[in-house]
Amino acid sequence: MATQQALLDSIKEQTILSEISALSGWDALTGMPKDAGHFRADVDAYLAEKTFQVATGPQRQQLLEALSADKSALDDFGQLVLAKAQKDFDVTGKIPEKDYIDFQRTLSEAQDYWAQAREANDYTIFQPYVEKIIAYLKQFIPLWQTDEATPYDVLLNQYEPGLSVAKLDAVFDELKTGIMALRHRLETLGTEPDGTFLSRQVSKDKQREYALAASQRLGYDMNKGRLDDTIHPFMEALNRDDARITTRWDEHNFQMAVLGIFHEAGHGLFEQNVASKYDAVRAVMPISMSIHESQSLFNEVMVGRSKAFWQAEYPKMQAVFAPTFDDISFETFYNGWIKTEATLIRTEADPLTYPLHIIIRYEIEKAIFNDNVPVAELPQLWRDKYQEYLGLTVPDDLTGILQDIHWAGGSFGYFPSYALGHLYAAQFMATMQKTLDFEQIYASGDYTPIFEWRKQHIWQHGGAVDPGDILMAATGEGLNPQYWLTVMNDLYATAYQLPK
Amino acid sequence: MATQQALLDSIKEQTILSEISALSGWDALTGMPKDAGHFRADVDAYLAEKTFQVATGPQRQQLLEALSADKSALDDFGQLVLAKAQKDFDVTGKIPEKDYIDFQRTLSEAQDYWAQAREANDYTIFQPYVEKIIAYLKQFIPLWQTDEATPYDVLLNQYEPGLSVAKLDAVFDELKTGIMALRHRLETLGTEPDGTFLSRQVSKDKQREYALAASQRLGYDMNKGRLDDTIHPFMEALNRDDARITTRWDEHNFQMAVLGIFHEAGHGLFEQNVASKYDAVRAVMPISMSIHESQSLFNEVMVGRSKAFWQAEYPKMQAVFAPTFDDISFETFYNGWIKTEATLIRTEADPLTYPLHIIIRYEIEKAIFNDNVPVAELPQLWRDKYQEYLGLTVPDDLTGILQDIHWAGGSFGYFPSYALGHLYAAQFMATMQKTLDFEQIYASGDYTPIFEWRKQHIWQHGGAVDPGDILMAATGEGLNPQYWLTVMNDLYATAYQLPK
Repeated sequence: MATQQALLDSIKEQTILSEISALSGWDALTGMPKDAGHFRADVDAYLAEKTFQVATGPQRQQLLEALSADKSALDDFGQLVLAKAQKDFDVTGKIPEKDYIDFQRTLSEAQDYWAQAREANDYTIFQPYVEKIIAYLKQFIPLWQTDEATPYDVLLNQYEPGLSVAKLDAVFDELKTGIMALRHRLETLGTEPDGTFLSRQVSKDKQREYALAASQRLGYDMNKGRLDDTIHPFMEALNRDDARITTRWDEHNFQMAVLGIFHEAGHGLFEQNVASKYDAVRAVMPISMSIHESQSLFNEVMVGRSKAFWQAEYPKMQAVFAPTFDDISFETFYNGWIKTEATLIRTEADPLTYPLHIIIRYEIEKAIFNDNVPVAELPQLWRDKYQEYLGLTVPDDLTGILQDIHWAGGSFGYFPSYALGHLYAAQFMATMQKTLDFEQIYASGDYTPIFEWRKQHIWQHGGAVDPGDILMAATGEGLNPQYWLTVMNDLYATAYQLPK
Repeated sequence: MATQQALLDSIKEQTILSEISALSGWDALTGMPKDAGHFRADVDAYLAEKTFQVATGPQRQQLLEALSADKSALDDFGQLVLAKAQKDFDVTGKIPEKDYIDFQRTLSEAQDYWAQAREANDYTIFQPYVEKIIAYLKQFIPLWQTDEATPYDVLLNQYEPGLSVAKLDAVFDELKTGIMALRHRLETLGTEPDGTFLSRQVSKDKQREYALAASQRLGYDMNKGRLDDTIHPFMEALNRDDARITTRWDEHNFQMAVLGIFHEAGHGLFEQNVASKYDAVRAVMPISMSIHESQSLFNEVMVGRSKAFWQAEYPKMQAVFAPTFDDISFETFYNGWIKTEATLIRTEADPLTYPLHIIIRYEIEKAIFNDNVPVAELPQLWRDKYQEYLGLTVPDDLTGILQDIHWAGGSFGYFPSYALGHLYAAQFMATMQKTLDFEQIYASGDYTPIFEWRKQHIWQHGGAVDPGDILMAATGEGLNPQYWLTVMNDLYATAYQLPK
């Protein structure tokens, strides 16, 4: 019987399977014994197969068809869930099963060859797999396409509902111009801060103590989370009451773990505060990447680079790290803390240069799918753009086109979410400043008003509301990159003592 | 089609499900966020249901029936697997599904009421659930019974194939007499060692460093394992390449974690060294408890209480803990290390008194199932036996009959495995001493010969060979408690300076 309950039961099974996969994934990256990978591959393949069956099998298909044809059995919640489940189904269900399986196998191989190519520092080893993946995606795009304008629009929409090349072209153009202008002013008119104190030794235990305490002041709940060590930090949410964060440590670069933990705790905050009514349907209502990233970046940049925040927090950090920074004044600390410098590696970039890394990738992906640029030409394209936008000469593939795993995973159209996250964070911040006095809140030590605003306007909705709608409802405006450019101009004008 | 491959595929699915359950169980006891229990309960219920379907559902039933009727499709391995799968099926498959589900629910409730009874220190809260569980088991026993002599024999056989009340009565009688005689000699003729140094402070990090290094010298492979903190220590093996151990710490009782880690690493050694041919059929070939315990206890007692071992290891431990024990001579250390004292709590017992705790539980369980002793009389029975065998007055239920969770879990017939583990360990040791020079091996620092013997004679067989057969093949003899009594007499005669 095609009832709402039958749909919810089916989705609950999918949610439980995704929860198990999340546990397995977290474990594999935080301390699973080194030799156990081959056994774990069997477990993960089993889970993927079961999930595929539940999410796209005949039972789900019949439910979707029957309930779409006659919605009288569904209340509002049921209709929302049906729409989300249909969307979830379309991504894989519209592809012939054989092609889907071949594609997954190609992705799995591609990741191995990406790793090999990195080891050999030679893009040509990876190139045939990029070509294969792109060929598959070009074959799938017409199956996925509904009313999007260009092939690349179809991919963008899978990660960010409602996003288009037309919108991004305009936004990224504004952003690129603004960033390059500010960087030019800093170079020609600014005084570069001294950041040497940032490499003073701070033990892992002390870094952990401070960063977790501050993250908890921002609302991250350790009764619904934990912090583990890993190589490439991430947050993994099994459910609302189990949103685990991870970090890496460098005793001579405490900024990395402190901001990294703020960042992941921002993701964790989101997951911990999704409304409980979505518990059993999480699997078909993933939170969109851009809005998720807006919350990690809110923690990392809007809070973690804010002068008012550090005015309150620096003495607390000094006390935990004492006596290491007793001789560093607040001004010296803060200016060094937000020092900006172009890097070849995206994940090491500071907030000001980060969007340029994304714009480069966006322009290359657009060229691949909309202009059919050959894959062999991508390394040169990459080098040219890094020279032009960041003024950096890319010396090799490892620090160039081989740095990200995303393409090996088939994730074309994903990178823009990272930049949107920055822009959303700043736009939320600008709205919050109309009703919240951040200086007073930070000085009080009780950050609850910030927590409550974010929970009410953003987190509680989980993946139920599209990011563009959340932004509009919360800020009364569509995406506007000027908020972010204003934040950046303010931050760096102070730290680099630009003339007013 | 009822082929060998179809059977193996079905069992592989069961094995993967059990691997996932093991990961979930390990995670829940080592650091899952405090608030996540209710979500995890859903996951575990789902896994239990899937496992039940795979292990006892129509497909498995048809395979078992068809392959049992015509074994021509099976090679030797297939026949072994069929027999094990049939045995696995019989434990649950012979019970009507409704009764099985009701029983599981009763067990789940019983564990809550056991915890409540412990909190109130009042057995009568738990008593109705013990009665229910016993009633269920008495109802199931005739369904399980094949040729066992008494009802309690049926339960014993589920944990230890081939075990009987007749055998255990004889063995435990010999054991009880021997232990009580030795304890009497120690009390009247011995000099009690000074163990005060055992409470000197040793940091958790140093305890961990030493205990893991020694465990690795004994062969525990950290590339196939890890060590985590927990409340009630255990080893959890997801598979041969992922056998995780856990411990608890007390900075003023380093002996607890050192011997605890040796113990769990002994379990881990077993799992890490099962032959790879059993990888996919683990779920129907669990290693029997007694033989498993013999290997943890071999590490903890036969190695971890041995004078020759500590002659080689004490300087290594002193170096890691330096300077804390620089003033403690080897003789003082060793005698204090094996000091014996009766305790009310089984899990805190030393090797000499431990079997008496088991014998008490054995006698009570036998009285319940074979003599129908009323459940209301058990606390008095418990108190009488602790007085008689250990000379201890039990002050309350918490330190008496409510101390173990086993009955709340329906595990009647399980306790004897612990005592058998002690006896097996000593019997293996006696055989090994015929060909291995332990003093020379320990002095050399290379413990490989001990590792190799255990792997060849015990570990590689996993759960494929019954414990009695492993014992017979390895030692050329059936179970003989005199080996264990000899070890104990030797250990304590030295430490307590008994007259020769």
